[in-house]
Amino acid sequence: MRAALGLDFGTESVRAVLVALHGNELATATANYRHGQILERLPASGRKLPPHFALQHPADWIDSAAKAVRAALRQAKCSANEVVGIGVDFTSCTMLPVRRDGTPLCLVPKFSRAPHAWPKLWKHHGAQSQADRINAVARERHEPLLARYGGTIGLEWLFPKMLEVAENAPEVFDAAEVWLEAGDWFVWQLVGGDAEALPRSTCQAGYKGMWSAADGWPSSDLLQAIHPRLADVVTRAMPGKLVAPGQEAGRLTNSMASRLGLREGTPVSAAIIDAHAGVPGAGAGEPGTLVMVLGTSSCHMLNSEKEALIPGVAGIVKDGIVPGYYGYETGQAAVGDAFDWLRRLVGERDFKRLSNGAAELPAGADGVRCLDWFNGCRTPLMNGALKGAFTGLALHHGPNHLYRALLEASACGLRWIVELLRAGGVAVNQFVATGGLPHHNPLVVQVYADVLSAPIRVHPSKQGPALGAAILGAQAAGAFPDAGGAIRAMATPKGRTGSGKVFKPRAGNATAYGKLYQEYRALTSMFGASEKGEILTP
Amino acid sequence: MRAALGLDFGTESVRAVLVALHGNELATATANYRHGQILERLPASGRKLPPHFALQHPADWIDSAAKAVRAALRQAKCSANEVVGIGVDFTSCTMLPVRRDGTPLCLVPKFSRAPHAWPKLWKHHGAQSQADRINAVARERHEPLLARYGGTIGLEWLFPKMLEVAENAPEVFDAAEVWLEAGDWFVWQLVGGDAEALPRSTCQAGYKGMWSAADGWPSSDLLQAIHPRLADVVTRAMPGKLVAPGQEAGRLTNSMASRLGLREGTPVSAAIIDAHAGVPGAGAGEPGTLVMVLGTSSCHMLNSEKEALIPGVAGIVKDGIVPGYYGYETGQAAVGDAFDWLRRLVGERDFKRLSNGAAELPAGADGVRCLDWFNGCRTPLMNGALKGAFTGLALHHGPNHLYRALLEASACGLRWIVELLRAGGVAVNQFVATGGLPHHNPLVVQVYADVLSAPIRVHPSKQGPALGAAILGAQAAGAFPDAGGAIRAMATPKGRTGSGKVFKPRAGNATAYGKLYQEYRALTSMFGASEKGEILTP
Repeated sequence: MRAALGLDFGTESVRAVLVALHGNELATATANYRHGQILERLPASGRKLPPHFALQHPADWIDSAAKAVRAALRQAKCSANEVVGIGVDFTSCTMLPVRRDGTPLCLVPKFSRAPHAWPKLWKHHGAQSQADRINAVARERHEPLLARYGGTIGLEWLFPKMLEVAENAPEVFDAAEVWLEAGDWFVWQLVGGDAEALPRSTCQAGYKGMWSAADGWPSSDLLQAIHPRLADVVTRAMPGKLVAPGQEAGRLTNSMASRLGLREGTPVSAAIIDAHAGVPGAGAGEPGTLVMVLGTSSCHMLNSEKEALIPGVAGIVKDGIVPGYYGYETGQAAVGDAFDWLRRLVGERDFKRLSNGAAELPAGADGVRCLDWFNGCRTPLMNGALKGAFTGLALHHGPNHLYRALLEASACGLRWIVELLRAGGVAVNQFVATGGLPHHNPLVVQVYADVLSAPIRVHPSKQGPALGAAILGAQAAGAFPDAGGAIRAMATPKGRTGSGKVFKPRAGNATAYGKLYQEYRALTSMFGASEKGEILTP
Repeated sequence: MRAALGLDFGTESVRAVLVALHGNELATATANYRHGQILERLPASGRKLPPHFALQHPADWIDSAAKAVRAALRQAKCSANEVVGIGVDFTSCTMLPVRRDGTPLCLVPKFSRAPHAWPKLWKHHGAQSQADRINAVARERHEPLLARYGGTIGLEWLFPKMLEVAENAPEVFDAAEVWLEAGDWFVWQLVGGDAEALPRSTCQAGYKGMWSAADGWPSSDLLQAIHPRLADVVTRAMPGKLVAPGQEAGRLTNSMASRLGLREGTPVSAAIIDAHAGVPGAGAGEPGTLVMVLGTSSCHMLNSEKEALIPGVAGIVKDGIVPGYYGYETGQAAVGDAFDWLRRLVGERDFKRLSNGAAELPAGADGVRCLDWFNGCRTPLMNGALKGAFTGLALHHGPNHLYRALLEASACGLRWIVELLRAGGVAVNQFVATGGLPHHNPLVVQVYADVLSAPIRVHPSKQGPALGAAILGAQAAGAFPDAGGAIRAMATPKGRTGSGKVFKPRAGNATAYGKLYQEYRALTSMFGASEKGEILTP
């Protein structure tokens, strides 16, 4: 049975999923990284790392991938010859400096004791002042690229992290022959070849690297203005060719084939960001479907035929998610994380009592209101320093009221994003939820449907990104004429078309939630301002 | 040993305390009301009462007082002859309709099944629309009396409760021959005599009955405009003479003397509101000392030589607390109540961990802010509908942060009151805390001292109001030449002068708390407005 392999590199583990080309998931296996989510100490020196550092070990990615792929093949009783293509999704911006032969700088003895030579995980938060500097310079120069990112470059992105190294460890910066995303590095390891031809994903480059198909990487003028050391970094240390997810990045080398237990020459897709892989994984190939990847934080993504530069929308990238469309990325910084925070705050062991209690309360949580910015506001205010709030509290309120208010606030944050996209002229016609959260927290999906006044379909796969990666692998192998065909065949297969539970908005709540949303927006006006001091509407 | 008896009628029980004239507390005894805090069902009919009703049984007051007094006498090994005077403090406005002979209307068989014939406890909340009506009419007529109450009559006060009966049970209203405060009724029971001479306290009348020494009761013009049935109620059904607390209301009758185990002819002081009795009880006879009675809610009271009508200050009554001064009453609606609410919200069994954790946090609770209006805002906004809030919340905050923020908000609410009084020209020189809270929650007193930037003395008596009542009893008996003398002798006795633990503001926090207070006031501006839509400053 012909199948595609999806490799989903998460924050703590890699997941390998084998999906038959007609759509059944044949096997899934997960392998944790040996060093865990982040390194506590530098392996070479045993030195404890500062609290805002989040580094990973590049060997973990390959070791864990080999373990997971072999387990999945065994489980599916699938031979290497049956795997027609490989797709890879990866957290982003997780990045590292390497030699021109691909060797991570951290594995070169001379640099193994330099923290800045190690791969930085997406959540490494050491580049705040660098992001501030980049934003200030770009604004001063009226750089048009800012418009593609809602006006603000994030501190987790590629260039702030590179600037952090340039400023704090210039010797590492100068020794870096190639800077690249971890997903691109892994795909490069799979397919081999010269640095000049290393396949960089248009997704990672577009969303996190300030690259666009029309304008390429940031100009050396802009980079020079940011920091002299960056001036020539693109020509000197960012070689490669840009490849869209679903296009072939290359073919599996002999050595990696034997490492992973696969067949040499198997086509490999260009990488994709993990959340973005959730879009094909949720069966959403067509424009106008908002794919909500709900987890500790949430990513809401959408394909559109139209490019509309909307203030506050973090990323708009042509071919960024699916070839042929503009991919829009928006997000909420604390979702499952915030729910879990509240659960701990009120001393509950799990969500059972909170969910039952909150479900019994009427729309509006008896007047309790919440601002869901417990980890800042991603879309649209792009301000990590903003804080959360509860208002409308009285002595008769309890944990259930706060939990319901939090769910409703999260839904209002989503509605804000949807209204922003629509006001910008981007159609949002359908809603699909994916990720872990909707499967174990149906109440949140119901509240989202109520507040959006629209049905939400929960995609049945509990591993949307891995499934999406497999679809891109099949597509890169030419198993389908186009992305839409691959998605239709594998993510919405026969007998499962339109499958997944649909949460319909409950009748009679629209007015209450309309009012609630206005009150939520009043709170956003009170407590949130973009960096320029203005509030984004609607 | 000559002693005075203080009777403190609280919400659930009455406390009898015997205090030697030189100041030692000889004995204390408490007796719960047989029917508990409020009646769940009407005794006569067994009918369940609506949720906003809070009725008490008048027989409970006398039965429990008899029990408590006898127990205190036994405990002190004190004979009836040694008790030179009796003082009575009572919750307020707890009120009832009676016959001219003093019989409560609810004990007259014809009316025993009428809920409105029963005594209404202070916290009975059935008169909201009636209070609104009175406020609207008084404002429309530019009634000068409003200025004495910070511009607003409360729904718990005497006339709103009377109007509730007039509107909802006119047959009860018409049958009521005398309307009066429960404290006055109890004193009248003690001293006997005609209705025409029944001793009404200037404290209850002034703070809860819209009465003033200069203008008397509300005019029949105003009452007519409020409701025709009220037009003649003062002349028809509010007989009596006004007597200040500490002045003699009369002498104990033979029958009540035998009921209580006391001596016939013992002088009895006019009643006083329970919280207000805390002022002499805390040894504060002089002007300029703010006595903070801290409990589930808080009352902050002050004597001054000056009458300053300050918007937002709930009550300014000449001779209202101590003869010779203007008594100022201010308050915070949720204090211990709010602390307890938070404790329950976060699932703690007691305050131990919260207090320790909050004490370790720096001033400002790491950015968490709170608005302490969980039961509305009493002073200065006089708006029970306002609600509480927490802002500045992030995922790393826990219960201790919220608890510290709540303590700091409570302290800021107090500072607002102090700044309001001072801005109005009323001196506030010293701070004394009394009531139960400061004894079992020293952290709150420390935070109050820090935020006020002033030392706070906690009065050592754990029964300030009862002690205050005893002092007024001694004064009514002529045991001291004036109120100051009685207070000095009994509340700050020899060997205990200036006694009580003093909490000094910790150095180095004044700037942080100054900023915090400004942020608190910003929250009050965002979420609070007086009924006229304006925010009271400073």
